[in-house]
Formats: sequence, structure tokens, C-alpha cells
Amino acid sequence: MGMRILLALDKFRGSLDAAQAGRELARGIARAWPHADCRVLPMADGGEGTVEAVLSSVGGRWIPVQVHDPLGRPRTSGYAWLGQETALVEMAQASGLALLDPAERSPLQTSSRGTGELLAAAVAAGAKRVVLAVGGSATVDGGAGLLVGLGCRLWDKDGRELDGSGGSLGEVSRLDLQPAVERLCQVEVEIASDVTHPLLGVQGAARVFAPQKGATPQQVVQLEVNLAHWAQMLRNAGGPADLGTRPGTGAAGGVAAALLSVARHVQVVSGVEWVAQAVRLDEAIQWADLVITGEGRLDEQTAGGKVVAGVGRHARRLGRPVVAIVGTIGGGWQADPVRLRDACGLLAEASILPEPMELSVAMTRTPELLAAAGERMARWLEVGISLGKPGSRQPADESTCSARQGFGQAAGE
Amino acid sequence: MGMRILLALDKFRGSLDAAQAGRELARGIARAWPHADCRVLPMADGGEGTVEAVLSSVGGRWIPVQVHDPLGRPRTSGYAWLGQETALVEMAQASGLALLDPAERSPLQTSSRGTGELLAAAVAAGAKRVVLAVGGSATVDGGAGLLVGLGCRLWDKDGRELDGSGGSLGEVSRLDLQPAVERLCQVEVEIASDVTHPLLGVQGAARVFAPQKGATPQQVVQLEVNLAHWAQMLRNAGGPADLGTRPGTGAAGGVAAALLSVARHVQVVSGVEWVAQAVRLDEAIQWADLVITGEGRLDEQTAGGKVVAGVGRHARRLGRPVVAIVGTIGGGWQADPVRLRDACGLLAEASILPEPMELSVAMTRTPELLAAAGERMARWLEVGISLGKPGSRQPADESTCSARQGFGQAAGE
Repeated sequence: MGMRILLALDKFRGSLDAAQAGRELARGIARAWPHADCRVLPMADGGEGTVEAVLSSVGGRWIPVQVHDPLGRPRTSGYAWLGQETALVEMAQASGLALLDPAERSPLQTSSRGTGELLAAAVAAGAKRVVLAVGGSATVDGGAGLLVGLGCRLWDKDGRELDGSGGSLGEVSRLDLQPAVERLCQVEVEIASDVTHPLLGVQGAARVFAPQKGATPQQVVQLEVNLAHWAQMLRNAGGPADLGTRPGTGAAGGVAAALLSVARHVQVVSGVEWVAQAVRLDEAIQWADLVITGEGRLDEQTAGGKVVAGVGRHARRLGRPVVAIVGTIGGGWQADPVRLRDACGLLAEASILPEPMELSVAMTRTPELLAAAGERMARWLEVGISLGKPGSRQPADESTCSARQGFGQAAGE
Repeated sequence: MGMRILLALDKFRGSLDAAQAGRELARGIARAWPHADCRVLPMADGGEGTVEAVLSSVGGRWIPVQVHDPLGRPRTSGYAWLGQETALVEMAQASGLALLDPAERSPLQTSSRGTGELLAAAVAAGAKRVVLAVGGSATVDGGAGLLVGLGCRLWDKDGRELDGSGGSLGEVSRLDLQPAVERLCQVEVEIASDVTHPLLGVQGAARVFAPQKGATPQQVVQLEVNLAHWAQMLRNAGGPADLGTRPGTGAAGGVAAALLSVARHVQVVSGVEWVAQAVRLDEAIQWADLVITGEGRLDEQTAGGKVVAGVGRHARRLGRPVVAIVGTIGGGWQADPVRLRDACGLLAEASILPEPMELSVAMTRTPELLAAAGERMARWLEVGISLGKPGSRQPADESTCSARQGFGQAAGE
């Protein structure tokens, strides 16, 4: 029987979705091992691509919904109906950074309203459990827009209605959260996220995440002030006392802070762990002789809830060899590969890059480069397999450190 | 006993010499396999670095000689005295492209005189066999400069003495080759080269090699005319009738054509094969469980006499697994890796690049990147070794092409 290889990759952001990445890698591996049995199990970590990965493995239905995008423009988005009264809502599909041109990134203007509209649609369709995958958002609005999408209303001190954007939060002086409370009272909300940052402070949503969403340093300060005011308003309206400091409330611009203030049953779950369970990752790993994961980039953050670390740790726990093929091995990883490899459960990693090139070129060529890397790395494994057969000497055998002298020169440090 | 690994690499041109490259790779491998027995055997192909590689393995003495560089400037060069009346002369050390700034590359001006001076010195010291490694030359002078270095004289139709540079060849109307004939009459000359191009024509020294030595298209035409005239002069002086068309006479700007016209015992030998024999490559391969070779760049030319192909074919013939770790996997190789891998005897290859970067950055970082790649690739081999142990399924077993269905989706083409 051919070797069974599980290809459980994340997307290569900007180049390939998770299923495409797996297929390209399988295509390359097949060139080296035509009789290997490659299975693609697209993975995600709760961010962009989560719905697609889950739908491709688990089945379920895509329910289209008209929503407002981060800048309030109409947009057809949707959510996944997974059966058993469960809906999967991906924030990136309605309020995602990828929906904006780089020039449009402006956390003072953007709002998570579209995500609230998806939640409202899922609840209206009968969902009793909603999983909200919050990665990849464009917003730093403390979830105010999400509440507006659920029917809540916000006013400033002059009675003017506010839109819930990040820039409007500082002006909120009165709010009506009742519509969201009523909609969510029978619903279990699971926020799928691996972010442990709090809403406020130096490790908070504004300071840590607003810059990558387009905020200038001045705007970061403004957003921090606005979020602090918004947190006070939520607490006054019955939200938990620690919602400014509780770990995880800083994810996705603060949506957890808003949800904790209106829903009875809210829990934060690991994004990659939720996906792993949904797509039955462990079952797939147990089927495999070898597991290959991958994503666009390995770096210091990979160990903190990314797909590669999730797949790596599950495979290690189940006793299956697991390796990663990625676009970029980042500088942080290069500086400490042994520790990070171990933290992620990996045995080995490789980059797809065959030659010096710019990132933009590498991203254009990713499908071809990934397939070629799959073939190359299969050849390396094959060399190892031959070396591992009985009769070959094993490098891991530590009984003798040979000190032969002869031709050539010994390796120096 | 730890696995025995032979590291037989070429230089990484512009970054590391062959010994340094082997040591960096060994340093990285030791991080993964501290008990592996790594031996560095620096390799070369008859071009730049040949003397260094041979001296580091074989022993011998470096004999310094004052010569003229390709532009006629004084320079301390030298040759290797290998004992047994054998000298190894590296043309790149006296007439090499690497001795010139890029702006100085000008085949109309350059001459191989310095190489002739090295030959003369070796013969004066008692050499009965001279191996001339001709790769990396800056000259397209048909070996006229080399003859001048051996004491020959050239004159134009007005009796003015000529210097033997590529630009002067067209004016040669009288020559005296007797000094070279006398010096070399007792000497066996071996030209170490893997170039099979003839002196003249569309596959000749001017058309194929002059552009990379700095010639403009117009100068290429001029050089072709000059070489044709020079070939006629050599034939008139007793050189072989086919010296314009014989394979190999186009190497190093045509030095073989000149040597064939003045020496009794001249043969062209493969550069990489000569080095392989000199450093006892086969003995080292037979000692090893695994052979790793490498160089700056793999491309379509690699199979034509480069170190990687030489080491690869020797190892394949001797039944030892052989892989390559290189700076760049070039576009030609990427387009047809299976054929080129096979042509070079390799089982697998990898690039040292971990992330998108410019060539200039990669060259600066080569030591570190090569060590890191050594560690990474050892990890991949280790995964394969585990897979190859009894009880693991083998991918090469073709008895069943499994067609299971289940979770995930099958790999598509």
C-alpha cells in the first residue's frame, strides 16, 4: 500500500486558499511518489478562510446574506449553516481587512456592523449555537458596529444617532442594547480566536492591532481613548466589570467585549482547535503515515495558535511525523528554529523558494513553487527512507562519536 | 557508529570557497546530528578554486610567481607543486575574470600572458607534467598571450612587436614559436576543461564566451575575425590542421589551440574528473553513508562538467545516496528537475533560501544560510529515516494505489 500522506495546510495568504495549497502540494508529491495516497484537509485558524475550510470538509450550506461592509457599502456576504442548529460566521467575510483596498484601511471609519448582520441572520434562521470566527477584521470599534447590526442603537449627547465605527465610540452617551440581548438570549456564542490580548492598554486592541489595520500613531491614541469610553458605557449597561482587561476581549477590535455585554452564553474558544475538531483533524492524522502542514509564513507568532502549530501538536500527540512546507521561513524562526519547531510540534520545515526573488514574485508563483517544493521534499524523505532501511547506519545512534582521520579535513566549528 | 557524511562541495562563487562551504554545511548538520561523522572534501571543476581545493586535500606546495595579470599589470600569482614532477597551474590565478573589476572586462585588451609565465616557471622548476586548469579566464586571445609568456614573439606587418591580446591577433603577420616549443618539448600538458566548444564559428570561443568576458556584439565579431586569422597563422607555423574546429579548442579563449601548436604531448581532460582523481573522491565516497554536494547555482549547465554532476555521478556509480544543497536552483533546472537530477546523478536537491531576498543579500548571508539549510535538510532526512524503519509503510511500494474515500478531498491534478 502506498504511503498515506495527510496534507493539512492553511491558506497561503494572497496566493492560494487552503484547499488549493493542499492540492498543489499533492500534485508535486505525486511526481515523486505516484503511488502515495495524498489527502487534502484544508485548515484554518478562525481567521479568513475558516468557513471555506470547514465547508469543504464537513459539508453544510452557504447562506448568502446582504450586509454592510466595513465602510458601510452594501455587500453580499453569508455564513455557513452546519446543521444541528449551528451556524459558523466568519467576521472576515463581512468586516474583513481583505475587503478594503490598502488606501481604505481606516479604523476610525470602519465598523463591524456587517458581522452583526450575519449574526442576526443566523439567529433569525434558527441557529441556537453560533461560532464566530473573528480573525482578519478591519475594525477597532469595540464591537459597537456588531451591536448596531444586531439592532442596537447608539446616540451622542445631542441625540444624534451614531454608526458604531471606531471613530464614533468616544461620542456615545446613550445606548439601547435590548435588541441584541433579545436576539441572543437563547443562543450560545462561541468566539473562535487565539488572541489573548485585552480590550484596553498597552497590549490592547488599539495599540497592538490598529496599526496593521491602517491607523496612524495619532489615531491609535484616539482609538484607545474611544475604546476606554465605550468600555465604560458597556459596563454601565450591564457588561462585565473586567471587560477592558479580560484576556481575549482585544480580539478583532473588541467584538468580544460587546458580545459579553449582551449575550448570556459567550465563550472564547481556540480558533485552530475549533476548526481541528470541526474537520476531524485527529481522525485524519491517525489515518496518515506522514502529515504535512504549511502556510504562507513561519515566524515567532506561529506557535501562538496558527494552523501549523495546531496540526503539528495534534500530530505529535498522536505519534505521527509532521513537517511543514511554507512560503517564507521568517527571521524570528531563522533565529531560533530548534525552539520554535519544538513549540509547534514539527520535525522539519522547508521553504518553497528555489532562488532569490521578491515577495511579490514569489506570491505570483506560489502554486508552481509549492508543487515543485512538494516534489523536492518528497525526494529528500525518500533518501532518508532508504537510509533508514535495515543495514544502513543510523545518525541518531549515539554510541560512538567516530574520530577517524583520513582524506579531506574534518569539519570545524 | 554515527552516520558518515561526505561533504564534497564546490565554491559558492562570490561567497565561500569550497572548504568554507563544506565547513558551514557541516556546522549546520551537527546541530541536527551531533554524532554524525562529517568530512569535508573541497571540490572544483578546473576553474577558479581548483588549486585551493586540490592543495587542501592532496597536499603539495604553493609556489609564488611574479606574472602579468590579464591587463598586463604586475601581480603575484603562483602554481601548485604536487610532487612527482607535476605542477598544477590555474589559469584563473593569472588570467582570471575575477582579477578584473567589471568595468575592466575587455577581451580586446586582455591577454593570457600570465598563464604562460606560470607555465614557464613550472617547467623551469623541473615539471615534466603540467595540469592546466583553464576555467574562469578573462581572455579571448587564442592563447597568443600564453605563448608570449612562454617566450614567443609576434610581429605585425610593419615589424612592430605585438602583445598577444585578443585585439592584436588580427595584425599578426610573423611569429616565432620556437621558445615555447623548446620549453615544452619534454613536458606533458593536460588541459583540465569540460568545455567542448571549438575555437571558431557559432559555437566558438568568441561567439559563446566573449560576451560574458565583457565583449560588445561588435567586439565579438572582431574577435571572431581575429581568432580566424590567428588560427591560420598557427596552422602555417605547424599547428594541427583542425585547430579551428576541434572540440575543446574553444576553452578559455582558445589556449588549447596555441598549446596544440607548440607542445608534443597535449591532452584535454575533464576538469572535474581530474580533480576527483587528484583528491581521491571515490575513496571518500566509499567511506560515506551519504554524500552531500553543492555549489552556488544549479542550472542546465550543471550536468556538463560541474562539480555537482561529477560528485553525483561518482556517488551513483558507487551506490551511495547523493544530494545537493545549493544557493540557487536556476530557472532551467526548475523547468525540468527530474531530467537534470538524473543527468547529474542526484537523488534530491534543495536551496538554502528561507525567504524572499535579493541575490546580493543571499550572497552576503551565505555562510549562515548554508548552515541553517544543513540543519533543516538533516531533519528532513531524519523524518525519512524514521519512515524507512521496519514497520513503516513505503511510498515506493507500487502494489496498491489506494483509492480510499473519507474526510477531506482527494488531491486533484
